[in-house]
Amino acid sequence: MSYAKQLLDTYPGSFDIDAALLGGTIDALSDCAQACTADADDDLSEENVAEMVKCIRLCLDCADVCVATLGVVSRRAYYDPNVTSLLLEACVAVCRSCGDECERHAHNHPHCRVCAEACRRCEQACRDLLGAMK
Amino acid sequence: MSYAKQLLDTYPGSFDIDAALLGGTIDALSDCAQACTADADDDLSEENVAEMVKCIRLCLDCADVCVATLGVVSRRAYYDPNVTSLLLEACVAVCRSCGDECERHAHNHPHCRVCAEACRRCEQACRDLLGAMK
Amino acid sequence: MSYAKQLLDTYPGSFDIDAALLGGTIDALSDCAQACTADADDDLSEENVAEMVKCIRLCLDCADVCVATLGVVSRRAYYDPNVTSLLLEACVAVCRSCGDECERHAHNHPHCRVCAEACRRCEQACRDLLGAMK
Amino acid sequence: MSYAKQLLDTYPGSFDIDAALLGGTIDALSDCAQACTADADDDLSEENVAEMVKCIRLCLDCADVCVATLGVVSRRAYYDPNVTSLLLEACVAVCRSCGDECERHAHNHPHCRVCAEACRRCEQACRDLLGAMK
Repeated sequence: MSYAKQLLDTYPGSFDIDAALLGGTIDALSDCAQACTADADDDLSEENVAEMVKCIRLCLDCADVCVATLGVVSRRAYYDPNVTSLLLEACVAVCRSCGDECERHAHNHPHCRVCAEACRRCEQACRDLLGAMK
Repeated sequence: MSYAKQLLDTYPGSFDIDAALLGGTIDALSDCAQACTADADDDLSEENVAEMVKCIRLCLDCADVCVATLGVVSRRAYYDPNVTSLLLEACVAVCRSCGDECERHAHNHPHCRVCAEACRRCEQACRDLLGAMK
Repeated sequence: MSYAKQLLDTYPGSFDIDAALLGGTIDALSDCAQACTADADDDLSEENVAEMVKCIRLCLDCADVCVATLGVVSRRAYYDPNVTSLLLEACVAVCRSCGDECERHAHNHPHCRVCAEACRRCEQACRDLLGAMK
Repeated sequence: MSYAKQLLDTYPGSFDIDAALLGGTIDALSDCAQACTADADDDLSEENVAEMVKCIRLCLDCADVCVATLGVVSRRAYYDPNVTSLLLEACVAVCRSCGDECERHAHNHPHCRVCAEACRRCEQACRDLLGAMK
């Protein structure tokens, strides 16, 4: 278990998002960023690396967007809700694209199946947070 | 001068964005990320740090979003243009918010004036790239 | 639970570090990076923010080093073991400094107690990985 | 030109490193991080991508370490000089490894020549900063 929920429970200010929902999104973002970083590297170890190029790039994009989103939602004063919304929407979009591509390789490459699962969970978590922000 | 333009000119594939425009955006993102990281630290050194809290947070958010956008636009195969657009829009929004807040402190704190300039340039560069992508 | 261990178990190549140990280090790095990001923000919400400046800076440093270390150890081909060792040693050092500073505030600020715990766990995990690499 | 030097010149505190030297290192780190990110992507576009795997991984490692070092040296209060030294040493090591690998491909792939140059300049800048810190 991560420290996200504990840190939300000890936050000195107040915020109007459910802590369990936000903590779950933070964990999903963190897990997805690591899974995509690892999966890009797994792809580079495959014999058919030439067929994995799109998967590698999407994993790198997905990791970058998850890391930024993780930073922004971990700061609880959303001075500009528009930034958070656009970023969460970008994260939903990249998790979906990356998840789709990973799924295409899942039957051959078990690591892509794991990464697809991380992307799906993160996509859903970002959707849920977006819904709760409205 | 950075290497962004040279790397675009030696790119092995093709891409349909003007290299000078894309290279300029990449430089603006890179410079803005560093400026925001440094300005957040400058703010922490100010005697009136309690009044700089919003500026610090927006600088940290802006740096995070610029870094992710830098990574994504540096990869030239936009498999999902929607991701790039949403991310560029998030970057425009955070650069504007951060630039506005920095500008409020610019008369007292020269480092905030420098950071505001970096944010304005990056906001404009992201808008230009968005325009060119359409 | 994160996906780190599953991704190590489905890695297409081989590596000579125990997967449970490496997976545990990856999780500790990921958790520590997020905890430090969140704790820096918690500190910014405290009334005595001027007294928290050192803690904020160390948290930002610690998050940066953990993220880089996470990336490097997630790529399993250590072409240059010297890079990994120096980075893990830098990570041990920053986790210790950040953990010490957080602990100084732990009695007043529960979020610093949580972050200190994340730093201690990460410091130990990096030490264990360093030990296993020798 | 980046904003690094201007932000050092408007820093509200004092620091005992020459601003031109530190500003130059910050620029070199920032440029190298972007060059490595772009070169990894260029490598993925090459027909002989299978031969570029080591180069891709070293570029990703190098970008990660440069980004962390950039963050840490941009914060001017080195509470723990040991962290900064170890990180700069890790950065020297990864820039050398990545520069060597890029150089091996420089005659075939002009983008690797550009990236090798960025790595060499960053390696030297980190060495110079290390020297000045002693």
